[in-house]
Amino acid sequence: MKINNIATRTISPAAEARAVDVIDQTALPHAYRTVRLSSLEDAAHAIRSMQVRGAPLIGVTAAYGLALALARKDDDATLSAAIATLAATRPTAVNLRWALARMQSRLAVVPTGARAEAAWQEAATIAEEDVDHCRRIGDHGLALLRPLAEKRGRLDLMTHCNAGWLATVDFGTALAPIYAAFDAGIDVRVWVSETRPRNQGLLTAWELKQHGVPHTLIADNAAGLLLSRGEVDAVIVGADRIAANGDVANKVGTYLKALAAREARVPFYVAAPRSTIDFACLDGNAIPIEERNGDELRVVPGVDSSGLTGSVRQFPADEAVVNPAFDITPARLVSAIITERGSCAATPEGLLNLYPEGSHA
Amino acid sequence: MKINNIATRTISPAAEARAVDVIDQTALPHAYRTVRLSSLEDAAHAIRSMQVRGAPLIGVTAAYGLALALARKDDDATLSAAIATLAATRPTAVNLRWALARMQSRLAVVPTGARAEAAWQEAATIAEEDVDHCRRIGDHGLALLRPLAEKRGRLDLMTHCNAGWLATVDFGTALAPIYAAFDAGIDVRVWVSETRPRNQGLLTAWELKQHGVPHTLIADNAAGLLLSRGEVDAVIVGADRIAANGDVANKVGTYLKALAAREARVPFYVAAPRSTIDFACLDGNAIPIEERNGDELRVVPGVDSSGLTGSVRQFPADEAVVNPAFDITPARLVSAIITERGSCAATPEGLLNLYPEGSHA
Repeated sequence: MKINNIATRTISPAAEARAVDVIDQTALPHAYRTVRLSSLEDAAHAIRSMQVRGAPLIGVTAAYGLALALARKDDDATLSAAIATLAATRPTAVNLRWALARMQSRLAVVPTGARAEAAWQEAATIAEEDVDHCRRIGDHGLALLRPLAEKRGRLDLMTHCNAGWLATVDFGTALAPIYAAFDAGIDVRVWVSETRPRNQGLLTAWELKQHGVPHTLIADNAAGLLLSRGEVDAVIVGADRIAANGDVANKVGTYLKALAAREARVPFYVAAPRSTIDFACLDGNAIPIEERNGDELRVVPGVDSSGLTGSVRQFPADEAVVNPAFDITPARLVSAIITERGSCAATPEGLLNLYPEGSHA
Repeated sequence: MKINNIATRTISPAAEARAVDVIDQTALPHAYRTVRLSSLEDAAHAIRSMQVRGAPLIGVTAAYGLALALARKDDDATLSAAIATLAATRPTAVNLRWALARMQSRLAVVPTGARAEAAWQEAATIAEEDVDHCRRIGDHGLALLRPLAEKRGRLDLMTHCNAGWLATVDFGTALAPIYAAFDAGIDVRVWVSETRPRNQGLLTAWELKQHGVPHTLIADNAAGLLLSRGEVDAVIVGADRIAANGDVANKVGTYLKALAAREARVPFYVAAPRSTIDFACLDGNAIPIEERNGDELRVVPGVDSSGLTGSVRQFPADEAVVNPAFDITPARLVSAIITERGSCAATPEGLLNLYPEGSHA
């Protein structure tokens, strides 16, 4: 069973009544429930609290958030305030800013009064393009994976965090090539790392299970041992921002896997659409790293012994915690970047070759 | 307040009534309680369930376990069976085997009937020596750390798992130099990684808090970012087994930190006593890696909202899990090994120079 991740659900023809339903990812894998976003505030809250997460999905949700704001009131003050609110929700994933800039440039040529409808249409277009881009990423990624599978007769992949259809509108970025390989009949298995502190590995496991892809959960700490033992043919992850030189910001812990992959001479692939590439960002040092609340480590959510959704405090409240949400993987550790236009080296030339328009971004 | 980790507590002068009290480390940091080990079975259970953990402490507990078995019945069958039971509790930490071999060779020259008393004395000697060795490791480690502290006016260290006094009889291995630096007035701060899946970082935080050493908890995944940002002056960890060539088996995740330390040109130190060095093991490939139950990842212990010790299931029970407890850090990533006899390079020559008797071990 495949569940569409984001349903653009027009509650009534009146623009004011429009809403978007999203899966509440904070409840997964223990409970499946959706949340209706009916306002800018709903959308901003969903992004901030990580009910929606994943760089491409954040971008799409922000686009809809802007449309929801304009549906309430179509004036310049509302538009500016909505953009400011949404841009401030999360700092690292550049897709958010990309989507807002695209919406802004679309709306610049639309007269006031017609912008709510135009915004809604543009958000829907971004969502549709995301599906198309992820499908293409799957195809281009499969082209890289197929020779590895043919050499060994099977394919053991490792991923980190969740860069599947839950993180996008459909298919995913890092998981799209995995789904494509599975659907092509390749004997693919996936090492899924827990991804502390938010445990997005559980989202990946849940997704892979829906699709029937064999997978095994591991502690983040186990990645090095598995790679050094030759139990991994390739590592494939998504990205929250790719700098012009090919440096990659992705979920914290990605860098450690990239180091261990290089040491094991295992390819390390990054899958992401154009909206994740920030040509204005020269290298990884320029990417802001979000620092999140320490309670993400202190409190662990799950299901208690009675089967109810609960949580335990595993860190005393007075323990100081530092909780960066992302890290930077230097371009030299990245074997290839897989985009909707094909794969390229993690270099300025590689990226500009695929996206020549990037040079005047 | 410093609590002695293991109290050799003679309940009555009769050998049968002897027992050992240990801190139940599965209850920390939420509750402090001790467990009385009165039999071989108690000792084996304590090691297996990780009520006691840490390579040196496992060795001492096994020695007392043997003494407790002989106190019940001093015959050869009991002795052999006790050794077999204790040796099977955990495979990676070689201190366990080292302690059993030492006990065996001591008992070989004692007549039946007098072995219970001799075993008790020998276990106590091993415990006393462990305290002395850890104190010396602290001094030798401080000699390495002092120049780093002098250069910067402060000292930011990173450790993994718990290699403090909870993991030994007192002082610790990796934490001994940290305590020594703190006591010497150095402005030392410690990055403590959570250490999934068993969260022994919480034990380290609890220990450091007792001693007043400033520290900050991080997800294991954050180690790479902090190292790459220059926020760490040195990484210092313990070991469960060091091969003759200097390869190090330690808590899973250690290898990832060693890779990130090398990349950041930050020294990576391993602190361990002689009993952790296995000269019969040529390199890391020969070290058995313990595979533990997947429920260690699936179920997270902590304190629930009512303040009671509880747990939540964060992984669905039917998700496959692979849970290796250790990994191997190649000798080339280790800047120095700190022992009770001084520090040395992680090379066969370095180790044999400190322990010439190792060549005919």
